[in-house]
Amino acid sequence: MAAVITSTANARIKKIRALRMRKERDEQQLAFVEGIRSVVEAIQVEAPVEHLVICPALLKGQVAWDAVNLARAAGTEVIEVDETVFRTLSRREGPQGIAAVVRQRWERLEDVLPVTGETWVALEEAADAGNIGTVVRSCDATGAAGVILLDHTADPYDPVAMRASTGAVFTKRLVRATFDEFVDWARTRVVTVVGAAGDATHDYRTADYGERTTILMGSERAGLPPERQAVCDVMVAIPMRGRADSLNLAVATALVLYEVLHQRERA
Amino acid sequence: MAAVITSTANARIKKIRALRMRKERDEQQLAFVEGIRSVVEAIQVEAPVEHLVICPALLKGQVAWDAVNLARAAGTEVIEVDETVFRTLSRREGPQGIAAVVRQRWERLEDVLPVTGETWVALEEAADAGNIGTVVRSCDATGAAGVILLDHTADPYDPVAMRASTGAVFTKRLVRATFDEFVDWARTRVVTVVGAAGDATHDYRTADYGERTTILMGSERAGLPPERQAVCDVMVAIPMRGRADSLNLAVATALVLYEVLHQRERA
Repeated sequence: MAAVITSTANARIKKIRALRMRKERDEQQLAFVEGIRSVVEAIQVEAPVEHLVICPALLKGQVAWDAVNLARAAGTEVIEVDETVFRTLSRREGPQGIAAVVRQRWERLEDVLPVTGETWVALEEAADAGNIGTVVRSCDATGAAGVILLDHTADPYDPVAMRASTGAVFTKRLVRATFDEFVDWARTRVVTVVGAAGDATHDYRTADYGERTTILMGSERAGLPPERQAVCDVMVAIPMRGRADSLNLAVATALVLYEVLHQRERA
Repeated sequence: MAAVITSTANARIKKIRALRMRKERDEQQLAFVEGIRSVVEAIQVEAPVEHLVICPALLKGQVAWDAVNLARAAGTEVIEVDETVFRTLSRREGPQGIAAVVRQRWERLEDVLPVTGETWVALEEAADAGNIGTVVRSCDATGAAGVILLDHTADPYDPVAMRASTGAVFTKRLVRATFDEFVDWARTRVVTVVGAAGDATHDYRTADYGERTTILMGSERAGLPPERQAVCDVMVAIPMRGRADSLNLAVATALVLYEVLHQRERA
């Protein structure tokens, strides 16, 4: 059995700690998942876990230890660290003594060949990790294929995004692309691009979403700029009856995803 | 003109700083709103601002200074502090040098007399401030009256909730009550209580929401427990086609709110 790591300067620990930075996550193509609930979720959905990190002194509860034993039995390396080391890895106020390092999974847009009835979400410059995770969660709920993250959209492997997704980042398909690549892909693959904007003319409940659909959502702050709207096949609006002129990004995306689901199941 | 406050131990500053704690917010019945966007929003919607706190060295931009001058002209006190003091108040990494102390506004449930076509949301034990703010924002978008926060539901005047609401906490009606008080009120006022749960028999798109409606949503973790479901007039489910058995709370609430809006406007 491997020794318990007690040095915060240990090379492996430093590499794991670095995963809190987006740049390191991108380079290592790994993500850091923390807490009993999230780690158990990752194991349950068969996320590609590289290794677990546990601090036995902090780790309480049968569920957690069952997960550790299950992972060990499946051949996953379990790194044991002391409490001081674990606390330098954790970003929680009350660390639960369990974390997982998970491989990121990405597809190339050119390899995505949508079939009839398939729905994707494309996010353009979304900045809030919580929103991104919630969108991935809603893709799971509606049976959508996955999310295409355009340009500078934030990282779905950010810990906040992973937590908001409740495991769905490990089950839904994820693609990164530039906006131009996305437009080329949609034209080549005959995908209907449906943009959402407050001042669009089509109500989202009566719009025609086509046979293969990508719902294109703009950023939290600015929405979809006019030149991006111009490339959409359809622009839809969600009615608003109050003072404000926009909805939360994850809420708006879910409303459209559910409308597409409803229309497809009624058809 | 009042002197610039340069002591972090100043009594008024200490009282304002204490507003980051829920207990103090409850006692003082005040809230602390930070940042140009949020403060301007609060002023625009005529939130009951007690005073502004500004740090001239940090405060940049015409929009922000226009808001300060407008508030001054309207008789609102503007407290000037130095950078050190402002940084002890701020919870942001890059403080923008402007904040507002706003009076909380609450209604008593017994004073709420719903009229035909009116919709409320009741949150039971919701824990995430961001979700609560997003629900209030969706109430604004759908023209719902407001939110009834039951039992230990988190604080809509938490800074995270206020930011997520994009100003709607200052325009929508807010009520606190126990679950039992809520049930009494709904019966007395002949309000249809519509609960949401994954395993309910009615699809949310075909359910009958009644003339006066409250949508009752359970907590993020546990949903609505059976004994709470038992008091609902109707239980609705949002279909789920994926691995997971639940949606984000704010997403689920918005889906039902929009369905009620749609049915009312079609009627």
